Amino acid sequence: MRWWGWGADRDAAPLPPAAEAMLRAEIGWTPRTTPPVALQDVALPQLALDPAVRSELVAIVGAGHVCDDRLTRVAHAVGRSLIDLLRVRAGDGSTAPDAVVFPADHDEVAGVLAACARGGVAVVPFGGGTSVVGGVETVHEGFAGAITLDLARLDRVVDVDGRSLLATLGAGLTGPQAEAALAARGLTLGHFPQSFEFATIGGFVATRSAGQASTGYGRIDALVRGLRMAAPAGDLAVAPVPASAAGPALRELLVGSEGTLGVITQATLRVHRAPAATRTEAWAFPSFAAGCEAFRALAQAGAAGTIMRLSDEDESRMALGLDGDRWGPAYLRLRGQRTPCLAIVAHEGTARGVRLRSLRTLRTLRRAGAVYLGTGAGGTWRDGRFAAPYLRDALLDRGVLVETLETATTWTGLAALHAAVRAALHEALCSQGTPPLVACHVSHLYPTGASLYFTALARQAPGRELEQWRAAKAAASDAIAAHGATITHHHAVGRDHAPWLHHETGDLGLDALRALKATLDPTGIMNPGKLLFARPAA
Amino acid sequence: MRWWGWGADRDAAPLPPAAEAMLRAEIGWTPRTTPPVALQDVALPQLALDPAVRSELVAIVGAGHVCDDRLTRVAHAVGRSLIDLLRVRAGDGSTAPDAVVFPADHDEVAGVLAACARGGVAVVPFGGGTSVVGGVETVHEGFAGAITLDLARLDRVVDVDGRSLLATLGAGLTGPQAEAALAARGLTLGHFPQSFEFATIGGFVATRSAGQASTGYGRIDALVRGLRMAAPAGDLAVAPVPASAAGPALRELLVGSEGTLGVITQATLRVHRAPAATRTEAWAFPSFAAGCEAFRALAQAGAAGTIMRLSDEDESRMALGLDGDRWGPAYLRLRGQRTPCLAIVAHEGTARGVRLRSLRTLRTLRRAGAVYLGTGAGGTWRDGRFAAPYLRDALLDRGVLVETLETATTWTGLAALHAAVRAALHEALCSQGTPPLVACHVSHLYPTGASLYFTALARQAPGRELEQWRAAKAAASDAIAAHGATITHHHAVGRDHAPWLHHETGDLGLDALRALKATLDPTGIMNPGKLLFARPAA
Repeated sequence: MRWWGWGADRDAAPLPPAAEAMLRAEIGWTPRTTPPVALQDVALPQLALDPAVRSELVAIVGAGHVCDDRLTRVAHAVGRSLIDLLRVRAGDGSTAPDAVVFPADHDEVAGVLAACARGGVAVVPFGGGTSVVGGVETVHEGFAGAITLDLARLDRVVDVDGRSLLATLGAGLTGPQAEAALAARGLTLGHFPQSFEFATIGGFVATRSAGQASTGYGRIDALVRGLRMAAPAGDLAVAPVPASAAGPALRELLVGSEGTLGVITQATLRVHRAPAATRTEAWAFPSFAAGCEAFRALAQAGAAGTIMRLSDEDESRMALGLDGDRWGPAYLRLRGQRTPCLAIVAHEGTARGVRLRSLRTLRTLRRAGAVYLGTGAGGTWRDGRFAAPYLRDALLDRGVLVETLETATTWTGLAALHAAVRAALHEALCSQGTPPLVACHVSHLYPTGASLYFTALARQAPGRELEQWRAAKAAASDAIAAHGATITHHHAVGRDHAPWLHHETGDLGLDALRALKATLDPTGIMNPGKLLFARPAA
Repeated sequence: MRWWGWGADRDAAPLPPAAEAMLRAEIGWTPRTTPPVALQDVALPQLALDPAVRSELVAIVGAGHVCDDRLTRVAHAVGRSLIDLLRVRAGDGSTAPDAVVFPADHDEVAGVLAACARGGVAVVPFGGGTSVVGGVETVHEGFAGAITLDLARLDRVVDVDGRSLLATLGAGLTGPQAEAALAARGLTLGHFPQSFEFATIGGFVATRSAGQASTGYGRIDALVRGLRMAAPAGDLAVAPVPASAAGPALRELLVGSEGTLGVITQATLRVHRAPAATRTEAWAFPSFAAGCEAFRALAQAGAAGTIMRLSDEDESRMALGLDGDRWGPAYLRLRGQRTPCLAIVAHEGTARGVRLRSLRTLRTLRRAGAVYLGTGAGGTWRDGRFAAPYLRDALLDRGVLVETLETATTWTGLAALHAAVRAALHEALCSQGTPPLVACHVSHLYPTGASLYFTALARQAPGRELEQWRAAKAAASDAIAAHGATITHHHAVGRDHAPWLHHETGDLGLDALRALKATLDPTGIMNPGKLLFARPAA
């Protein structure tokens, strides 16, 4: 992955002409060029790793697997949030590790943690590095150095039990690697977050992630049955039983622990038979409210598709502006939809099952006034569903601020939450003289509620881009907390959401989780500054 | 509930003549009469509650809600396991509390906990008192008294949100009370453990229970979204968001905490629309293995019924022996089934949905060689599905040892686990001269595995009944642990399973959970001797 953006250079997406027109109209953008600095101009912290610890690390993993060259350090300095990219593109590499260590297996991970615990060295576990919540930056203050533990070499398919539909996978396997191994056995994990191409099994589990098809296949926490963790205090293992009444669920403490308790080295996950058929339909609702009601009806009847996505009016206008022909705007006008809300409804399974489920949703969608736009537009959406982060690089190159955030609440609370977060983002960015376009979609359905995923676009405020977004993010987070919604439905907590976590756990709940951490990580070396410990933003 | 058995006298079930014949044939039983002692002959511990604390409790809940009369103390002395009933029937009331306190609401619970924490008084939260793992007995040693906190008065329906299918229910509501309140709104929780008539919402959540229809409606841990807990260190609340990526799941620590962390005072649960139609079918498989394979196919295709229950050969023989006509034994012989394995497959939902799902299962069941026995036999099973504990009282009155235990594992591990637990129970009881009948059924299906529920029947060994069963239980538990299965799929840990819990959590995992407890319950007054703290059996 390029150190200052997403993916490889060959996949870079230029800003399409339609996007420029839309940006001018929507956010008053005028063309600027805001390229990243050169690699050699990124300011890195002085190497501070205790040489004795470094020698120990070399003894454990081999000299070739302890790297402190400039590119490796910069590439592990930040995740892939807007703040991360703005910082590194501006030459701020202050959160880079002293070294990146590449262990080969669980035992080497355990050895590295023991050495670091003895030496007081901070450890940041690292999968694909795609965190958008500041989950992988290192913290040096108070430690005798800080390393990043890149788990790429833990890429074994440990076991696939097709009879029980369970796969035990190494933490370092990327989404495509895991899917390829499973596909060879006619199986799929069905976990496709937007970071799918780079993110890893360990990262999925450590961040409690959800993917685009999680309405059908289930969030990662619904798929994890067993796991193995190396913590500074020792090893933990959870056996992959289908269900248990044996007390508090230890598994649910390790899932979502974001590297702050220890390192997840492998996970046993429920897998699914690979679908024989896939049908991705595009629809347009007369309003966001009508679409939400139809989606609620489907979710509560157990009739939702594998992928369910509903854009609000502004996101739909943006999609039509960017790539209007795909959606058939003339046809939509003909059908009386002047402010359509675009939706994707995908079904996966056996050919017969897909046909039946498509018919079942069709009735509900039609009754809600939705217009069917065909599988062509649906397929185009599916083909481009991992593209947004590439486009972001092009926007950052042209002076556009773009970031996403997400939450979830009950069906009853959804409309008010949608309005409140939109208002918070608008107000925070308008008051800075950079009126935004705020787009939103519902992307994960549950019988009791759904998630909301917001995208904000605005002109960058030159020289104060970080403060500009932090103010907007804080306003949105306050609105989320005030509405009793979750501060994150699938991006995790990391550094960025930590100040809001207590709204969900309460102070006592946070204390309880910290006590747990103190047991597993007594010297506090594991991913400091994230999740359970709020600290002022860098 | 009668202090020495199950339910009210009016519902008592005498031992049917067919049962006597079966017991003679299967376990060499000869009629004996083994009645319980009289209430006044139950030996109770000397009242030891610190009078200052008692005065505080009276000030909080009112004098009428602090009870220490003989009947109330005895009725709260034990749960409803075999060991519990053998002890109390023999006059051992040593685990009775000094007083039973009936708080009215969350704040009174919090006040009671504060008073007890200050005074060093042990507290046992108590719902329906139906624990079969020693979950509600009091421990006096090391405390300035021990009280039971009976939550029966926390019986408010706090809120029902039909739009989001969420109900917030007081912890003290019994199963029937909760269902009645929901039925009035066209809803159901769908949680029907065998203890349904007496067990409570708080007990369901605190013990992470599963019910007979959990294959369809989901275990209680899949239904809990939010909850409120009063702990000695303060209050905890989890908001009912549909899903979250905000770190380790605090909710999953409180669910299954069995009163050892604090008192669950209310829970927000996912509810379902009440089914318009119900169809309960009886089937017979040519073998347990064939039935398991068919059940696996259905669970993995997402086509399982709401209730799925498959008896092994011995349990089926017992059912046919007890109530043969119901199942049509002549018809079974005619269809070539000499050792049939009886199954229940129930569908609930809309009339059309039930019809379609029944057709879908039918194909799979027929292909596995199953013979359809009609909805008459199915309906009879449904009518009697809460009856077993009543029958147990009649068996205990006649010198029969009867107890159940349960576990769960992957589909791949199921057959070996079934054989191992059967062998362990047989060997342990045969070696004591009391050869058992060991019956088993599969009762909860998951895509990755299923639960096994064992019933053991044997002649009581006069004068050493407790040792007799403890040896058998230990042998079965060792076999479960050796197979990597869970020590409990739906009965919880309590006192009885605590010595085996470390097989699931590891020692470090147990330490982590104990650190959590130390934060929420710093003086260790909450339900001592259960869950996280193994102690020698009483």
